[in-house]
Amino acid sequence: MSNGERNTKIESIQNILIDKHIDACIISSSVNQFWLCGFIFDGYIYIQPKDPAILFVKRPFNLKDDRVVFLRKQEQIPELLQKMKHTLPSRLMMETDYLSYNATVRLQRALKIDEIVNVSSDLRNLRMIKTSEELAQIKMSAEVHTEVYKKIPSLYKTRMTDLELQIEIEREMRLHGSIGIFRSFGENMDIFMGSILAGDNAQAASPFDYALGGEGITPILPLGANGTILKSDTTIMIDMAGNYRPYMDDMSRTFAIEQAPDIAYFAHEISITIHNTIKAFAKPGTPCSDIYNTALEIVKENNLEAYFMGTDQQAKFIGHGVGLEINEPPVFTPRSKETLEAGMTIALEPKFVLPGIGPVGIENTYIVNENGLENITLCEEELITLK
Amino acid sequence: MSNGERNTKIESIQNILIDKHIDACIISSSVNQFWLCGFIFDGYIYIQPKDPAILFVKRPFNLKDDRVVFLRKQEQIPELLQKMKHTLPSRLMMETDYLSYNATVRLQRALKIDEIVNVSSDLRNLRMIKTSEELAQIKMSAEVHTEVYKKIPSLYKTRMTDLELQIEIEREMRLHGSIGIFRSFGENMDIFMGSILAGDNAQAASPFDYALGGEGITPILPLGANGTILKSDTTIMIDMAGNYRPYMDDMSRTFAIEQAPDIAYFAHEISITIHNTIKAFAKPGTPCSDIYNTALEIVKENNLEAYFMGTDQQAKFIGHGVGLEINEPPVFTPRSKETLEAGMTIALEPKFVLPGIGPVGIENTYIVNENGLENITLCEEELITLK
Repeated sequence: MSNGERNTKIESIQNILIDKHIDACIISSSVNQFWLCGFIFDGYIYIQPKDPAILFVKRPFNLKDDRVVFLRKQEQIPELLQKMKHTLPSRLMMETDYLSYNATVRLQRALKIDEIVNVSSDLRNLRMIKTSEELAQIKMSAEVHTEVYKKIPSLYKTRMTDLELQIEIEREMRLHGSIGIFRSFGENMDIFMGSILAGDNAQAASPFDYALGGEGITPILPLGANGTILKSDTTIMIDMAGNYRPYMDDMSRTFAIEQAPDIAYFAHEISITIHNTIKAFAKPGTPCSDIYNTALEIVKENNLEAYFMGTDQQAKFIGHGVGLEINEPPVFTPRSKETLEAGMTIALEPKFVLPGIGPVGIENTYIVNENGLENITLCEEELITLK
Repeated sequence: MSNGERNTKIESIQNILIDKHIDACIISSSVNQFWLCGFIFDGYIYIQPKDPAILFVKRPFNLKDDRVVFLRKQEQIPELLQKMKHTLPSRLMMETDYLSYNATVRLQRALKIDEIVNVSSDLRNLRMIKTSEELAQIKMSAEVHTEVYKKIPSLYKTRMTDLELQIEIEREMRLHGSIGIFRSFGENMDIFMGSILAGDNAQAASPFDYALGGEGITPILPLGANGTILKSDTTIMIDMAGNYRPYMDDMSRTFAIEQAPDIAYFAHEISITIHNTIKAFAKPGTPCSDIYNTALEIVKENNLEAYFMGTDQQAKFIGHGVGLEINEPPVFTPRSKETLEAGMTIALEPKFVLPGIGPVGIENTYIVNENGLENITLCEEELITLK
């Protein structure tokens, strides 16, 4: 990360502290540390309205950065601040969406703070608008993502299971530089490397907050592939992680096993139509709710409402921001309050689940430019046949 | 899970509520839900000192269990409790080590609670003693783990990198039923599928709280394999996840690339000696600190202190409990307060990092039986040569 980008990011937090009359802010989550520094550590970024940021570091012992102050435990922070002639804070911002209750209270007590204010929602809003360096990473991730998806037809073997195909895709992902770990925000977001759904497993309701569900292979992770044998006249949707760089893209593609019924082709084309319709009007200033509602209108016109985003349990969104986490703001629901802004990176995933057949539709990642949406997931969109 | 096991677990929490004069307890983390129910859901297990547990469920919509009460949001809990003629709680236990600060406070406000008390440490202590069903799962996981490790020599190719070998092992793991996701407790515990360390990469200090570090392949996950080419006269340590069942085992084995210097064989044998020495005396009642100190004594006698559990940054423990999370209590440090109890499952990992060569040593998982330690990771312990 350039020094310029680093300073701009610190200043954006300092402006929040000034606006809200808050004395300091402490950042310790790995995504927000990485966003601010370009590296992560066991410790705390301490930001005050005016002074340079301080990195209080426990581990690694050899972290090289001229802002580092080493410490053993957070209880030393007040003493270290006093030595450095800083006033102790009385109002403090913390990442209360990320930190556990106990970790938050321990820090609060260590710094003898009465009032803590959440900074994680501000940080998620700041991270929503990507820098040019971040956009370059997301584009590179999408290019590799496409290379991996192009290999899928060669990985398919007759009568294999969804899981067997997923395992071969996971291997290709890793050989292409996937970092493995797949970061998401919030509770109910467990996942491993992405989701593959074949046939009626796409109808299985899950406890997680993803667009679609799936039974999974274990009751401790009921999501995604469940060992379904890939059968002719069914479909399989591949929604594996675009985690080839710390900043990620998101992309789904659907395949027909041997062949698929006409309704699968029809509904798949409607998903592509929704993408194209949104792409034709969306630009900075467009309300995110308009994007959801446009999609829903097309779905209704085509009498596909019963299959839209699931069957019995339907997701109430068709897209989300993407970056260091797979679910960043904005979110595209009927009641979204956000509007599109230049620099956002958004994944749109209007999908259908057809009983007896499987899931269809595509997911693309778009960069919001001044003129409109730029699709960066440039990968065949039609229903491809595996045979 | 049998009904008997389920009831015993609920009762163990009810006894804590009675002992501590607390009105109710809410469980929503997936590990503790799974431990108590054998499945997970988006929602809350509500336990009172006497009445049967209630499952307040948001998703999935079709969860089948006669204790289920569906709800849309946690703010409905008081109203639902009143309808069911339950008294509203005034003192409540919550999983404050697992839940974010904001999630905790939202629940606290929803239930209008003044005082919340941590239940997550009690639950970690309860989970420390495994049931016979849990022990059976851990043993099965260890058996599959051994099958996968036996394949390692056949996966090795001359001049491959640590990462290339890891990717082939990951594939074998998944083909053998690894569930992928690797659960750990606490902050600074990010990891993907385990750790492989070759040569001097084992000396790289990491921000994470694992036994050894490694540079990793990305600054957002600085841990493990870094693309080191496997070279003759160096070693590679395989410490991949034993996540073949929800209840896990933990095992590390070390390999010599083509051949290894005598000191590698010597230090590796000391690791095995430490295991055998501990196995000869440890039993229910043994202080966990004695186990650490016995190991350290042997290390000192053999002048290997400078290489024990790292070089520049050395871990201060040689083992930990294992179960639904990879780092459960007890932990084996010089200052551990716990003593061994029958039903514990512990992983011991006395390891050395030899500059210019690499890591050596083994990690085994033991069940603590009435008579002593039972090794369940029955896999060749000697330094195996890859060629």
